[in-house]
Amino acid sequence: MITDTNDLIAFNQDWMKKYTGQSQLVLKPKTTEQVSKILAYCNEKKLAVVPQGGNTGLVGGSVPVFDEIVISTASMNNIRSFDESSGIFKVDAGVILEAADTFLAEKGHIFPLDLGAKGSCFVGGNVATNAGGLRLLRYGSLHGSVLGLEVVLADGTVMDSMHSLRKDNTGYDLKQLFIGSEGSLGIITGVSILCPARPKSVNIAFLGLESYEKVQKCFQTARSDLCEILSAFEFMDRDSQQLAAKSLKTTHPLCQEDETGVDSVPEYPFYVLLETSGSTKEHDDEKLENFLEKVMGDETVVDGTVSQDETQLRTLWTWREGIAEASQQFGGVYKYDVSLPLDSMYSLVEAVQERLKKLNLSSTEDESKPVYEAVGYGHIGDGNLHLNVAVREYNKEVEKALEPFVYEFVSKHHGSISAEHGLGFQKKNYIGYSKSKVEIRMIKDIKNHYDPNGILNPYKYI
Amino acid sequence: MITDTNDLIAFNQDWMKKYTGQSQLVLKPKTTEQVSKILAYCNEKKLAVVPQGGNTGLVGGSVPVFDEIVISTASMNNIRSFDESSGIFKVDAGVILEAADTFLAEKGHIFPLDLGAKGSCFVGGNVATNAGGLRLLRYGSLHGSVLGLEVVLADGTVMDSMHSLRKDNTGYDLKQLFIGSEGSLGIITGVSILCPARPKSVNIAFLGLESYEKVQKCFQTARSDLCEILSAFEFMDRDSQQLAAKSLKTTHPLCQEDETGVDSVPEYPFYVLLETSGSTKEHDDEKLENFLEKVMGDETVVDGTVSQDETQLRTLWTWREGIAEASQQFGGVYKYDVSLPLDSMYSLVEAVQERLKKLNLSSTEDESKPVYEAVGYGHIGDGNLHLNVAVREYNKEVEKALEPFVYEFVSKHHGSISAEHGLGFQKKNYIGYSKSKVEIRMIKDIKNHYDPNGILNPYKYI
Repeated sequence: MITDTNDLIAFNQDWMKKYTGQSQLVLKPKTTEQVSKILAYCNEKKLAVVPQGGNTGLVGGSVPVFDEIVISTASMNNIRSFDESSGIFKVDAGVILEAADTFLAEKGHIFPLDLGAKGSCFVGGNVATNAGGLRLLRYGSLHGSVLGLEVVLADGTVMDSMHSLRKDNTGYDLKQLFIGSEGSLGIITGVSILCPARPKSVNIAFLGLESYEKVQKCFQTARSDLCEILSAFEFMDRDSQQLAAKSLKTTHPLCQEDETGVDSVPEYPFYVLLETSGSTKEHDDEKLENFLEKVMGDETVVDGTVSQDETQLRTLWTWREGIAEASQQFGGVYKYDVSLPLDSMYSLVEAVQERLKKLNLSSTEDESKPVYEAVGYGHIGDGNLHLNVAVREYNKEVEKALEPFVYEFVSKHHGSISAEHGLGFQKKNYIGYSKSKVEIRMIKDIKNHYDPNGILNPYKYI
Repeated sequence: MITDTNDLIAFNQDWMKKYTGQSQLVLKPKTTEQVSKILAYCNEKKLAVVPQGGNTGLVGGSVPVFDEIVISTASMNNIRSFDESSGIFKVDAGVILEAADTFLAEKGHIFPLDLGAKGSCFVGGNVATNAGGLRLLRYGSLHGSVLGLEVVLADGTVMDSMHSLRKDNTGYDLKQLFIGSEGSLGIITGVSILCPARPKSVNIAFLGLESYEKVQKCFQTARSDLCEILSAFEFMDRDSQQLAAKSLKTTHPLCQEDETGVDSVPEYPFYVLLETSGSTKEHDDEKLENFLEKVMGDETVVDGTVSQDETQLRTLWTWREGIAEASQQFGGVYKYDVSLPLDSMYSLVEAVQERLKKLNLSSTEDESKPVYEAVGYGHIGDGNLHLNVAVREYNKEVEKALEPFVYEFVSKHHGSISAEHGLGFQKKNYIGYSKSKVEIRMIKDIKNHYDPNGILNPYKYI
């Protein structure tokens, strides 16, 4: 139990420092039974609660809005079991994603999810928010890989569905409701998930391209020629790399130090980070080599570097994974995470840049402007764009320029206003841009049915 | 509208001829709007309906129990759209699975599901029953690959969730409830599904093995060494192959004709059919060759044949896919489809064989015995066993010998009493062997909420 004002801060505030609650009480149960007792009590007394995992969410879903009680799963962090013959892994909700993957690595397996926040986020939170991340292209969504869940419902009932079967067609697949429910239907306390064999050979290519059209062409070729070994295909625009360069303070993979000894600034309009994972190194190398020959030959790609050694791999990944933090370096960031058809995906970034310029809100040099720059990057393979608007301060005028503009753009192109970040507090009122009235009614029905007193993560989601 | 007694037979009876209803009316709507109007009317008048796809189900889920109105999706069979850049495919529920896959083949893509009944079953029925089939090992379950659904609810409301996004975290993933709901929550009228690139190279190995332990060992090696190109790993016991040999009347792939000119009888205790699918023929061939050298070298496998040509591939598959029909050749079949931990999987078949022998119910020679033989086969990679009890007649004594014996065995080993066939009419009363009281209550709650008058596929599922 945490009640000390100083200790409460970390639980009341999200990592972007954008959402701050006023909770006076954090509970850290150690067992599912304790979670059950807490919820039964809170439900009876109609006390609102916020389930919290690693608190790495990006939409204000994991912190209180007012003085809700925080229920943190941080003290539930045991690995329950791992079956080597089937690859089925059972963990407490509070296990850190990276710790889970490190454990699996020793057994020759891999967690079918990877994301920038892996060092802090919890597996339970990943499932509750249906995290997508970097390996979705290869291993699919959590709706496919999660085999079972243990969930405590609002009234304290424990739903033990910690199944360890790849196939089970006996009744509605209840666990699916909780994947992506963001703590609004119950608190996930345990996860059973299928973990594939860890690839024996991993390659990364970091490429420079001259247009967004070339990025798309490069993806089509990669999907066809690298097919079963393609495990990530990420794109980054120039501005995102320039931001990262300022923050990482190392030489960009496609730059040399210039004559003055200063790192050059990344200059290609677009970059691609492409990963292959397979079982046979020579085959993977040959496939990648042939692919690179093809895309460099027809000038889809104009520059590139390839890496196979673990340290180099990690360094290359920082130029993709470091963008999130780099976007915050001037004071703050407005983050949008949308699904869009591939061909219209980048035009959202261009439209936003143009709009901010036109409204005279944005400049990389003039420090009196609230916006530094809007950058775009993301998972081409999943049709998922991240639009980060790096700002010098959070500002109502900027917000009005961005919303509902971004959501209207996405809705017009039949996209999703939240591809992987969820709804949380930020997007609660915008669900209508992505879902129909019938769907929204059905979602509300389910919420009301399972949490009639509305104690679970209120003021959010729906 | 079909009301003619003769024409009604095909809709009243399942393909095993085990379940027969007395419906006097079959409706074949052509549009979602018509389905909506039919359901709105039936709901108001409290008329029970049975949604029916290709009527290839194995648990009596798609035929009436009494005189329910059959709503067939057979006249809703248009391909709505296919997007080559993303692989997203939208179809009416009544499109035949094989027709869908043939269409996709021309575009260089593949339907992420394949099963023996592909020539008759409908895509909508596949989704409604969460069909698993032969490619699950590679492409995962429909919970991962289905992106959107159009569903008509009991009161006629159309839930249009025909999304074409790989990622969308805006609200509960409602479509998941309908995947595997067997027509008990609504009628699926449209499906949006992600279809991967069609592999350019396909190989099949058909292997003979001396024990079930060797089958497991062979699978572990295949998963590790063939890894990303392994697309099916099926096992069949000797008795299943002898049944198939009687029915197919061709030479078994691991037999030669003997001196009398008669086909020899398959003699290895176990057989494995293993498929690889990849993008680069030479690499796949080399991987398979190295794998075979290893498993033949250490005597995991004692005999085998490899095939790469389309006709040979199909022939080899018939020895796996033909077992279902072969099991019926003496009069009928009791089919069980269970998930079990790999190491105890085959012991169910042995236990049933022993039990039937002990009760003096089974003989391949003595035609006065009701049971011909119990055979086992299935998807090792998915932990999914098919147990077929081939009988000369459907018989109460045999049923009492099998049930609840089989379900108790499965429950004791924490398996599922229905891995992929569903509950339907056959297993409605046995769900308690696989699901907890809390889960069953939640399933009933959902059913009552969405279908308060109980008009959708009554007397089944739950």
